[in-house]
Amino acid sequence: MKPYALGMDIGGTNTVFGVVDRDGKVICSDSIKTRNYPVLEDYINTLAEKINVLIQQVGGKDVVNGLGVGAPNGNYYRGSIELAPNLPWKGIVIPLADMLNERLGIPVTVTNDANAAALGEMTYGVAKGMKHFIMITLGTGVGSGIIIDGKLLYGYDGFAGELGHVIVDPNGRDCGCGRKGCLETYCSATGIARTAREILANTDTPSLLRDVDPEKLESKDIYDAAVKGDKVAIDIFNYTGEILGKALANNVVFSNPEAVVLFGGLAKAGDLITKPTYEAMEATMLNIFKGKTKLLLSTLKDADAAVLGASALAW
Amino acid sequence: MKPYALGMDIGGTNTVFGVVDRDGKVICSDSIKTRNYPVLEDYINTLAEKINVLIQQVGGKDVVNGLGVGAPNGNYYRGSIELAPNLPWKGIVIPLADMLNERLGIPVTVTNDANAAALGEMTYGVAKGMKHFIMITLGTGVGSGIIIDGKLLYGYDGFAGELGHVIVDPNGRDCGCGRKGCLETYCSATGIARTAREILANTDTPSLLRDVDPEKLESKDIYDAAVKGDKVAIDIFNYTGEILGKALANNVVFSNPEAVVLFGGLAKAGDLITKPTYEAMEATMLNIFKGKTKLLLSTLKDADAAVLGASALAW
Repeated sequence: MKPYALGMDIGGTNTVFGVVDRDGKVICSDSIKTRNYPVLEDYINTLAEKINVLIQQVGGKDVVNGLGVGAPNGNYYRGSIELAPNLPWKGIVIPLADMLNERLGIPVTVTNDANAAALGEMTYGVAKGMKHFIMITLGTGVGSGIIIDGKLLYGYDGFAGELGHVIVDPNGRDCGCGRKGCLETYCSATGIARTAREILANTDTPSLLRDVDPEKLESKDIYDAAVKGDKVAIDIFNYTGEILGKALANNVVFSNPEAVVLFGGLAKAGDLITKPTYEAMEATMLNIFKGKTKLLLSTLKDADAAVLGASALAW
Repeated sequence: MKPYALGMDIGGTNTVFGVVDRDGKVICSDSIKTRNYPVLEDYINTLAEKINVLIQQVGGKDVVNGLGVGAPNGNYYRGSIELAPNLPWKGIVIPLADMLNERLGIPVTVTNDANAAALGEMTYGVAKGMKHFIMITLGTGVGSGIIIDGKLLYGYDGFAGELGHVIVDPNGRDCGCGRKGCLETYCSATGIARTAREILANTDTPSLLRDVDPEKLESKDIYDAAVKGDKVAIDIFNYTGEILGKALANNVVFSNPEAVVLFGGLAKAGDLITKPTYEAMEATMLNIFKGKTKLLLSTLKDADAAVLGASALAW
């Protein structure tokens, strides 16, 4: 049994990768700026070079199980990244697993970033030992990774678990996907900032948030204000949690999970987001599921989570 | 390899059971009236007696693989029927598998009726060979059975796949589950009749449906009128299909199935229901799933479907 696995998280800004041991400890890691590589080949070559350095550092590829990659629009079945809107190489299908396997000589597995987070949570985090749970990543967008019988749900074509694009209001906000009212237009970091701008523009209630330039207002500002007791900020979290909780209740009827785990920037708000979410989820839950579905916060450390999650794919 | 399996479908009105061979042929079958047995013990004893007659008829229990049961609120993990509102024995958990196993001496497996239908479709019907699909049963209520990786999705507590209780309109119609706007209040046989009554009451448009006593109006009447070209009846199907299609698009993002299979009374309307459903599903589908998810009609014969589906559980 080889002692190490490699994990890599490809984001629009950074690509982070590292070596992880079986206890979920990140042994060594490195990163490059995704945006600095407009030419795909340059990106892949630099990555391979730097990953090889890490592999040598821990004792060569004989002690490394493989490389797991989490990436936006990552497809497990095809080992590819497909038409990811937030990466520099647009409109193409990137055969990432093949390209990296060729250069590294170890098995490479690809999935989307939220799926990687779910695997990480199941392998090292709060969902350790759970067979049925849903991971919701509340970041720039809303992603999800669904665990069924202890395995990631990929579906027929490899794209299962796009819960950020459940439509919660058919006449709602415009979404980047071209439709209206998707969950992520309300419950992502950008969605909650959008809510704040709307509420500030449509009301006169005094709020600490009025000191922030509306164009620059971020979820962190709302959190800071809420922690100081700002009513408007707290209302914004309540509004966001209510939408999230109702959407979760509607999805619990699909897979009957033991828990829903929240992860990502917005999840760091803790009770501010979990309390209204859980209340709305329970209030709208079908009776046979009431009181049976936990709402948990991820216990993965932020800095390591992406790499950990992806590495879990390689075990 | 034993050549036969037993299947049984428990409904509020009838309980049907039969012996099925590996090709999905019903060899022999029988039924009793569920409602005639207000005392559970009498019901179970009569069932066991009549099932034993069938077992003897095909050569004894050595050639029978087991008994699969589809029942409302059937729980696979516990082999029980739990708090089923439409059965004569209310408010209790019935340890059905144990009770029947004791009397028959063969393995007994229980699941809910829509799950049984999904298994039947995968084993003998249009979904033969599919690894990922969703079965939607459009009957008195709306049920669903979800197949993931070639297996029924039961979830943490055994109640996964309650898509009839996805809330499609939070301010919508009262549902028997105590909440508002569940899919089944619109897309079941009773839901479509409710739509008809509403439209007839709120408009003056001439329609063949005005010849039917509104209180007695059934989905079959709407079908008959639509087939004759009645505009109101066709509009009712379009309205129903639109709601169903949008709900399906919202659930496809969860499990990314190869197909959705429609089954039950309303599915018999064929194009009248599938055309508006598919159009709405495609129109509201997230781009990565567009054009990839089939909408199919069950190919199981109605008289045999319930028994076939349940028997599939016993293989």
